[in-house]
Amino acid sequence: MSATPKPTLHLRDMGSFHIGGRSVQLANQPAYQRVMSAGGEPVIINLNGTYMVEQMYVQYFLPERSNGKGPLVFWHGGGMTGAAWETTPDGREGWVNYFIRHGWDVYLCDSVERGRSGFAPFPEIWPENPVIQTVNDIFSRFRIGMHAESYHSDPAQRTPYKNTRFPLHAFDAFTRQMVPRWTHTNKAIIDAFDALLLRLGTATIICHSQAGPLALQLAGRHPDRIRALVAVEPAGIPDADFSNFTVPVLVLLGDNIDTDSRWPLIRKKILSFADTTPGTYVLSLPQLGITGNSHVMMMDTNNQEIADLVNQWLVKKLAS
Amino acid sequence: MSATPKPTLHLRDMGSFHIGGRSVQLANQPAYQRVMSAGGEPVIINLNGTYMVEQMYVQYFLPERSNGKGPLVFWHGGGMTGAAWETTPDGREGWVNYFIRHGWDVYLCDSVERGRSGFAPFPEIWPENPVIQTVNDIFSRFRIGMHAESYHSDPAQRTPYKNTRFPLHAFDAFTRQMVPRWTHTNKAIIDAFDALLLRLGTATIICHSQAGPLALQLAGRHPDRIRALVAVEPAGIPDADFSNFTVPVLVLLGDNIDTDSRWPLIRKKILSFADTTPGTYVLSLPQLGITGNSHVMMMDTNNQEIADLVNQWLVKKLAS
Repeated sequence: MSATPKPTLHLRDMGSFHIGGRSVQLANQPAYQRVMSAGGEPVIINLNGTYMVEQMYVQYFLPERSNGKGPLVFWHGGGMTGAAWETTPDGREGWVNYFIRHGWDVYLCDSVERGRSGFAPFPEIWPENPVIQTVNDIFSRFRIGMHAESYHSDPAQRTPYKNTRFPLHAFDAFTRQMVPRWTHTNKAIIDAFDALLLRLGTATIICHSQAGPLALQLAGRHPDRIRALVAVEPAGIPDADFSNFTVPVLVLLGDNIDTDSRWPLIRKKILSFADTTPGTYVLSLPQLGITGNSHVMMMDTNNQEIADLVNQWLVKKLAS
Repeated sequence: MSATPKPTLHLRDMGSFHIGGRSVQLANQPAYQRVMSAGGEPVIINLNGTYMVEQMYVQYFLPERSNGKGPLVFWHGGGMTGAAWETTPDGREGWVNYFIRHGWDVYLCDSVERGRSGFAPFPEIWPENPVIQTVNDIFSRFRIGMHAESYHSDPAQRTPYKNTRFPLHAFDAFTRQMVPRWTHTNKAIIDAFDALLLRLGTATIICHSQAGPLALQLAGRHPDRIRALVAVEPAGIPDADFSNFTVPVLVLLGDNIDTDSRWPLIRKKILSFADTTPGTYVLSLPQLGITGNSHVMMMDTNNQEIADLVNQWLVKKLAS
């Protein structure tokens, strides 16, 4: 789909599976009538029975020449799916392809209730409704522009950060990949990744935003199963005991945090965590002279350069 | 993930994009409070703003040595996602890998409101709730067993069709890939595939179940864009004028239709359509001596054999 010819990808295997989840029984629900397609006769819907919920979809891409460093698990952020790590909204290669090309066995996940993992559509199972962001909120929360008002339906009238590395002409394409999310499914999400780690043995995790605090919780629970953890702008630090934490952690922070309404406080918590947790390293891209990165740096125009930093750090950590 | 070594897959490219959809404005909705994660402070949620809805996720896998027959689009059935065409529930290669290995440029889609395509979680946009099948219904509607009562939570007490080719020990894994579906999104689904065809120029489509009548509608609308259509057990025939229909169609039917509550009628409609529509060929597997296939024959134990039949038909049709 790209104009630039790229080297062939050689895969020894690719495929997918679902893992984890639990069986739920619904009983004593009244039957109701539903017309299943326009013009059809109503069908009686009986909700009672057994459902599988809270499982997770995992897609794997295993390069022919593995780097021998074990599985690399991608864990996306809130309102997103595994698609976040694939092709960028403007059609460049994303981190999935990058890390396959660098010999990693890649496991690309859709968190519980996101994407191909499915969700439980009953208030009897999940009492709440899902939430979804407006495109205005996407523009500001992903730090492409400063405020929701920085977005305008006319691309020419948007006011992004002047130095942004986000591919602005593809912002509308980016909004198409956002999906609804629930807000009380953290335990189910962590349990499903736990089940994946148990299956894989050990793994390295690259996570983003909402997944940051969840992956840190999981790493605290099973430090022996996580070889290293890369947190791209984790949305918070979990309230947990990290005194015996042994997992090497790299935190990546982008630009334009100072003028954001939420990120100065999150950064403060991250720095405090790093100060008190040996093996944790915070990489502020602007401090390296890499400016303009948004909250979705894996899609920014310099996404390959940042992937290089991550890959180099991982290779060094996993060699020692 | 499989014990059998397989030849390396050589891809000249792989990635994904979202296509189609429409922008929707919500206004005058009251704000409400929501605790976004357990123990947190409530956040004020303002629903008003712009949303992208009804877009479609497309994942592409382009083999190094293309067979030159153009794009092959996979269009899954109701309650499913693109995962239906990937690895089988018991870990064998699915049709995605098969057709890549046979030189096809594969485009694996998640229909609108399914999987990585996301959905509109507002009654203001889609008034209805989604529906989802119980595992009991999955067992019978996919013709693994005769009735919903043929399912039992204890695998040893299930009563499948005696000759079934479905990998029974993986039935519970299969139920994990089912997702909720809406029932009045047919137009949005067809429009998104229409947008994909427009982008691809022309394509061959392999569709399943719910997608059958939708793909036939689309083929009736744009016969020039569809080179050939393979319908795996289409769930119906659309009420449309097919008098000038020019697309070669192969319909595949599995086994144990006679004793099913719904399929004898659907088969009757399919055979009537084939009788009156030149270029349509119905392949009843039992009539070929291939017995025991379920409604998800792309996952059955003989899925490679059936893929061979499809591939041979396509190669012949597209050569003439």
